[in-house]
Amino acid sequence: MWQQFQPKKVFLFMLSIMLGLTVWLLPTPEGVTEQAWQLLAIFVFTIAGIITKPLPMGAMAFIGLMMLVVTRTLSFEEAFSGFNHNIVWLIVFAFFIARGFIKTGLGSRLAFLIMKLLGKSTLGMGYGLVATDLLLAPAIPSLTARAGGVIFPVLTSLAKAFGSEPHSHPRKMGAYLMNTAFQGSVVTSAMFLTAMAGNPLIADLAAEVGVKLSWGTWALAASVPGLLCLLILPYVMYKIYPPEVKQTPDAREFACKELKAMGPIAFQEWVMLFTFVLLISLWVMGPVIQMKAAAAALLGLCLLLLTKVISWDDIIKEKGAWNILIWFATLITMAGYLNKLNLTKWFSQAVVGHLVGVDWLMGFIVLGLIYYYSHYFFASNVAHIGSMFPPFLILSVGLGTPPALAVLTLAFFSSLFGGLTHYGCGPAPIFFGAGYVPVSTWWRNGFAMSVIYILIFGVVGGFWWKTLGLF
Amino acid sequence: MWQQFQPKKVFLFMLSIMLGLTVWLLPTPEGVTEQAWQLLAIFVFTIAGIITKPLPMGAMAFIGLMMLVVTRTLSFEEAFSGFNHNIVWLIVFAFFIARGFIKTGLGSRLAFLIMKLLGKSTLGMGYGLVATDLLLAPAIPSLTARAGGVIFPVLTSLAKAFGSEPHSHPRKMGAYLMNTAFQGSVVTSAMFLTAMAGNPLIADLAAEVGVKLSWGTWALAASVPGLLCLLILPYVMYKIYPPEVKQTPDAREFACKELKAMGPIAFQEWVMLFTFVLLISLWVMGPVIQMKAAAAALLGLCLLLLTKVISWDDIIKEKGAWNILIWFATLITMAGYLNKLNLTKWFSQAVVGHLVGVDWLMGFIVLGLIYYYSHYFFASNVAHIGSMFPPFLILSVGLGTPPALAVLTLAFFSSLFGGLTHYGCGPAPIFFGAGYVPVSTWWRNGFAMSVIYILIFGVVGGFWWKTLGLF
Repeated sequence: MWQQFQPKKVFLFMLSIMLGLTVWLLPTPEGVTEQAWQLLAIFVFTIAGIITKPLPMGAMAFIGLMMLVVTRTLSFEEAFSGFNHNIVWLIVFAFFIARGFIKTGLGSRLAFLIMKLLGKSTLGMGYGLVATDLLLAPAIPSLTARAGGVIFPVLTSLAKAFGSEPHSHPRKMGAYLMNTAFQGSVVTSAMFLTAMAGNPLIADLAAEVGVKLSWGTWALAASVPGLLCLLILPYVMYKIYPPEVKQTPDAREFACKELKAMGPIAFQEWVMLFTFVLLISLWVMGPVIQMKAAAAALLGLCLLLLTKVISWDDIIKEKGAWNILIWFATLITMAGYLNKLNLTKWFSQAVVGHLVGVDWLMGFIVLGLIYYYSHYFFASNVAHIGSMFPPFLILSVGLGTPPALAVLTLAFFSSLFGGLTHYGCGPAPIFFGAGYVPVSTWWRNGFAMSVIYILIFGVVGGFWWKTLGLF
Repeated sequence: MWQQFQPKKVFLFMLSIMLGLTVWLLPTPEGVTEQAWQLLAIFVFTIAGIITKPLPMGAMAFIGLMMLVVTRTLSFEEAFSGFNHNIVWLIVFAFFIARGFIKTGLGSRLAFLIMKLLGKSTLGMGYGLVATDLLLAPAIPSLTARAGGVIFPVLTSLAKAFGSEPHSHPRKMGAYLMNTAFQGSVVTSAMFLTAMAGNPLIADLAAEVGVKLSWGTWALAASVPGLLCLLILPYVMYKIYPPEVKQTPDAREFACKELKAMGPIAFQEWVMLFTFVLLISLWVMGPVIQMKAAAAALLGLCLLLLTKVISWDDIIKEKGAWNILIWFATLITMAGYLNKLNLTKWFSQAVVGHLVGVDWLMGFIVLGLIYYYSHYFFASNVAHIGSMFPPFLILSVGLGTPPALAVLTLAFFSSLFGGLTHYGCGPAPIFFGAGYVPVSTWWRNGFAMSVIYILIFGVVGGFWWKTLGLF
């Protein structure tokens, strides 16, 4: 213990406690029940802990749940109700399924196949990496699995093959590709309900303002602005952060060699591919055939288990999934009960009175920009979403912003803002940590791209959603 | 895939499917809803799979849940309702807490302290091992953690220190101690709600015949017959399977040396000890202070996390806990809905009519013996409990057996029958696998002890529970 004693962490934990305690001890406002106010205090403590990280996210979640139960704010069954929420299991199952992409090598094979097609130039490679990411995004919500498990290894082996390493010729091609692949993963995360762990949380929170986001609606709404971003991203990067080597006639050969080394497509890869196609079909048709996305994911998972593409041991070893199960269920529970106990309603009524006369469009633009750029202060999309998404959504709707417009904009921003820094989301430390790009350049490129994302999603997106009749 | 293709496993899976399908296709009996009958069919399939093991238990559970959801027998939220059941989390939390006993070394220290006290003779050592097991049983429901993580390593180092190894002088003392410690772990498993993973499942199933088993009631009811068994067990073993070396004056010295090597009690061990005492106090006082056992366990777990006795990484790496979360929640859900959908009621009404005129005591003795000795055909307590406990309990109560007597007897049998074979419960393969005891001797001793357990729990237990006013 004492060798592990870290005054900074103790301080941060105490700070979270003080914050929660302050809320707890404040007089309960009129129109709010004692129970709702206690829940808010524990929620504030938990979120403060998730942001400042005195303990890992899951541990903070357990402590939050313990406080809910021990203070009798919620019953044990209420506090643990998030653990039978379908959207929590959707993400957990998707984490297990993603393991199959990596284990069978199907992910890498796709990446090398695309390289064979597009790898004639460094710019082509940039497009190839982004395209691979886009292909995998619908079924791999773990950014660490997608970026770290598939894209990053392929990228690293490519850059090395061309003699571009962190300490020798980083700018030859490695730096450009690292930054491009990273920004690509940020955009693809925004494009599917199942492309980022925080997205289902958003879908759940959106229901509180009456907006239903199915898997298909999400993908459709994101398709035009998302694809547009992905189309111009490798090119813009190529201009603002050009690689030294532009033509790479050997890359296709390299990809061919790697593919040859992999041998013919194995039975397990076929099963994985079939499951992947089945899953996406079921997710798209979900609302028509009345099958929940989580039920489809469970079906896919069972297929992989029965065909031994993944083993039961792969599942219980999948630490990321268990981690997410705990904190996700906790946040879903807390956010759900804040709503059920009418705290969100009270909050929106309390603020809306002060907003009379404010132009909703101007107001929403300001709120959206604050929501986006406050991510400089966050090291996790989920912490940001959990703390800021609900109040910003309520404020926006209170101003008069059409609920669906507010939900979609903030939802997509919740992935895109991860591109700002080298710590802002899961893949950031992976690609940045490779050591090709200096931190100032990383931030500069991140800011440049953020302007483009905001314009495309805000303007093109807005028109697209209007055309779709979403608002 | 093809290299892993195992015809036997495929056959067993098909067999489970056929069994379930047979029930599904049978005409639904009068008084049973379509939904309840479908649930029964999927339950039969799942239990058949858990018993014959074409896939690991957790994978079978996932497939069972998938079938429930895909056939629309239950909604997703209903099928996953076991995941917010407090008794499931009690066991999961206890698995995490048990990690602290092993990690801090407190478990081994207790074992060596007891050896220092009782290790003058081989018989004393037998008592020492059993006593250690008893001390740890209330907070370590994982038999693998308790027997494999604490008792077994201490026993092995003791036997080796005395030159008794599997292939040289096994009978000197190792064989006796292995068999005694194994039987001890079987008895202690029966003694606390939290001493074996299947016990809370029993407590949950018992509620269906109106018997409430709190942590304190369980411990109190088991105390007299359990302690009596533990008292005579090392002595009986000493007589029927004597060690060659009887006096061991060096053993205490050995224990002292080991304790010295461990150094003074560390801060983390104190925290662990404090948490252990706190937990047991809260579990005993639970009904008075209205705190659920799971809430107390979560509180203890948070203490260990905050003091860094266990880390978050220890938790998400604890594969056994995640495994149990999945299959336990699934069985709880299925058993619960069989009851909610009135299937158990229908079953009991259907059989009770045929039992008129049968003497309940004779009938119950026969049922109890069948329940006990059918464990020769099981490799897991949980599979046995899940498939046979509910119908045998209903039959017994239908005969006229007082419900509490039936519950308690079958509940304790559900641990004790694990002592029959070298595969019947978690610690069996651990102690048997050490290689000291031949299989025929293991079975002979197991049968001898089973007779003693049945007599003590059946007769002494019966009188004790009557005295307590439990029935």
